Amino acid sequence: MPESIPSNSVGIVESKTAHIDTPLEFECGKTLPAYDLAYETYGELNADASNAILICHALSGDQHAAGWHDMSDKRPGWWDVCIGPGKPFDTDRFFVVSLNNLGGCSGSTGPNSVNPETQKHYALDFPVPTVIDWVHSQKALADRLGIECWAAVAGGSLGGMQALQWAINYPDKLRHAIVIAAAAKLSAQNIAFNEVARQAILSDPAFNNGDYYDVGVPRRGLMLARMLGHITYLSDAAMREKFGRKMQKEGGEAEFAFQVPEFQVQSYLQYQGKSFVDRFDANTYLMMTKALDYFDPAAPFDNDLAAAVAKTKAGFMVASFSTDWRFSPERSREIVADLLRARKNVSYVEIDAHQGHDSFLVNVPEYLQALQSYVAQI
Amino acid sequence: MPESIPSNSVGIVESKTAHIDTPLEFECGKTLPAYDLAYETYGELNADASNAILICHALSGDQHAAGWHDMSDKRPGWWDVCIGPGKPFDTDRFFVVSLNNLGGCSGSTGPNSVNPETQKHYALDFPVPTVIDWVHSQKALADRLGIECWAAVAGGSLGGMQALQWAINYPDKLRHAIVIAAAAKLSAQNIAFNEVARQAILSDPAFNNGDYYDVGVPRRGLMLARMLGHITYLSDAAMREKFGRKMQKEGGEAEFAFQVPEFQVQSYLQYQGKSFVDRFDANTYLMMTKALDYFDPAAPFDNDLAAAVAKTKAGFMVASFSTDWRFSPERSREIVADLLRARKNVSYVEIDAHQGHDSFLVNVPEYLQALQSYVAQI
Repeated sequence: MPESIPSNSVGIVESKTAHIDTPLEFECGKTLPAYDLAYETYGELNADASNAILICHALSGDQHAAGWHDMSDKRPGWWDVCIGPGKPFDTDRFFVVSLNNLGGCSGSTGPNSVNPETQKHYALDFPVPTVIDWVHSQKALADRLGIECWAAVAGGSLGGMQALQWAINYPDKLRHAIVIAAAAKLSAQNIAFNEVARQAILSDPAFNNGDYYDVGVPRRGLMLARMLGHITYLSDAAMREKFGRKMQKEGGEAEFAFQVPEFQVQSYLQYQGKSFVDRFDANTYLMMTKALDYFDPAAPFDNDLAAAVAKTKAGFMVASFSTDWRFSPERSREIVADLLRARKNVSYVEIDAHQGHDSFLVNVPEYLQALQSYVAQI
Repeated sequence: MPESIPSNSVGIVESKTAHIDTPLEFECGKTLPAYDLAYETYGELNADASNAILICHALSGDQHAAGWHDMSDKRPGWWDVCIGPGKPFDTDRFFVVSLNNLGGCSGSTGPNSVNPETQKHYALDFPVPTVIDWVHSQKALADRLGIECWAAVAGGSLGGMQALQWAINYPDKLRHAIVIAAAAKLSAQNIAFNEVARQAILSDPAFNNGDYYDVGVPRRGLMLARMLGHITYLSDAAMREKFGRKMQKEGGEAEFAFQVPEFQVQSYLQYQGKSFVDRFDANTYLMMTKALDYFDPAAPFDNDLAAAVAKTKAGFMVASFSTDWRFSPERSREIVADLLRARKNVSYVEIDAHQGHDSFLVNVPEYLQALQSYVAQI
């Protein structure tokens, strides 16, 4: 928690809710007649609404991207390193909008919401959202906020996929797409990790086919999913540096026990898993991983991403991190190559950073400088 | 299953059991007054017992390393590519011994054995074995078989760790140590993957603190552990080649469902997980991962592996595979560097193979040739 608000912070912020009553037909065929989107905004929209930037979140993110909700918060929003006065997404200049995606669990309509038609939680009856569905719902939010065209749409990981999809679906509605630590589609290994995470949840007896809201959530399954996820967010090198083979007890001997963590990395993972369960919904986790698996904008274009982006008009910034093995630099270079083949404007930066996939969330000076430079010329 | 026995196969084999009644004191402080070791042998021991090779298995292996138990077997033993007439471990020349390690679940005494003192399954009361404990028990087997000095001790992954430990603990009792796809100690990331696997088992309600033998095994937890393990045994490239983004149904559309596998890689992992549960014991899995975590022969030597191997007399062969990210070539090069620093005889080969960690189990011609060349000069 901050003792005082730093001068480059957006400060104390609060989430708002937009109730959208234009029906949304999902790719899965289901329709929501109306839905809520929880969002936050930082900075001021200018008179011609030309300075708005949309921030899209990744698997476990939400609308709280910057600042604090309360002086007692332990940490600021998830992209606070990038959003604020003088930061890459400079709130002295831009009106930054961040929302919780549909299917999320932080205020937007999702599986943990009550379906007004049945008065029961949607649970797994909630439409499984895709990146395309999210983009359409984000367009509805833009309309609500009076934003005809985004100065930029930006995100990391699954958020970067949304930025890319925006450029494809609404070529006239954004001037720049900022695609960080992403991929144009998941690899078999990516899908495999998602599958283990899902099976951990699905096989938890408390899961109860998703209808657990009134009887107790599948803590064990969601905890395992998060522990596994965490390993893939960090690099081998970062884990070595942070934990190595250090034991919980100083100079500790092996205890030959299973129920207590002995190595620090065990304890860290267990803590991450347990604290995640308190803030996240298992059904949302299932849906987010499916959205990742399905993302494949080139598929309708005969698997040719260059054809998929042919009609885009945005300028692109693509960024990757050297030790990211979840979405490696190679995956970003594939995007760049296809954008160039389609003769689009692309800036690409490959950042030497040791934090793995998580690099996009943390203070890596070279990365923040590159982002700052790109956004400054928007 | 074979239609006929290939000429370079050891053919139909059977497991034997050695009952050892010399007490074994484990590193954890517990003692087994007596124990069984299940083992197989291929080839003939020569008159001066100088042609014996010990094969050590990895996490999920057992004593059945080559040949078939029955003509109806679907597959031969786990290292059949390496063991047989004319193969690297040439049974026309060598007497090859393979055993199930203590704590295993294929006939050697382990958690699923009945403790004669209590007439109940050992379960988690079984001593948590370390690589050093295994080496001592393997020495007892050598004594039983009349083998004073092994021509070689060999293994891949956790098996390679045993070969290295043999050279350290019994410098006069082996002439060569063959250490394949191994590491001198686990990294934080390695331990982290083991921890998620263990938590999957420990948090399965059916686990019942390990006392599940009479009431039903923790299938869900062990299945998850195996699914996760499988991802780390394969390379990203091998998974891409084998599965890519192929769907279960030809030309399949997304089904937006959670309970059925849609991508082929999901189905493959589920199959691997389910079939593993039918042949493996969850308590053994816990113990094997702990043995991996604890392995660190340099630790008693001020973390200096060169000092740890100073008194070894064996010649070493070390091998690694380019796409193995569980125990990468870098980890093998660390072993080689320390062996050289200690002025030991080392042959090192880094094989270009796309199958990841599993490369050591499969037909990679360059690898088999290198192994054949090394073993031929023993």
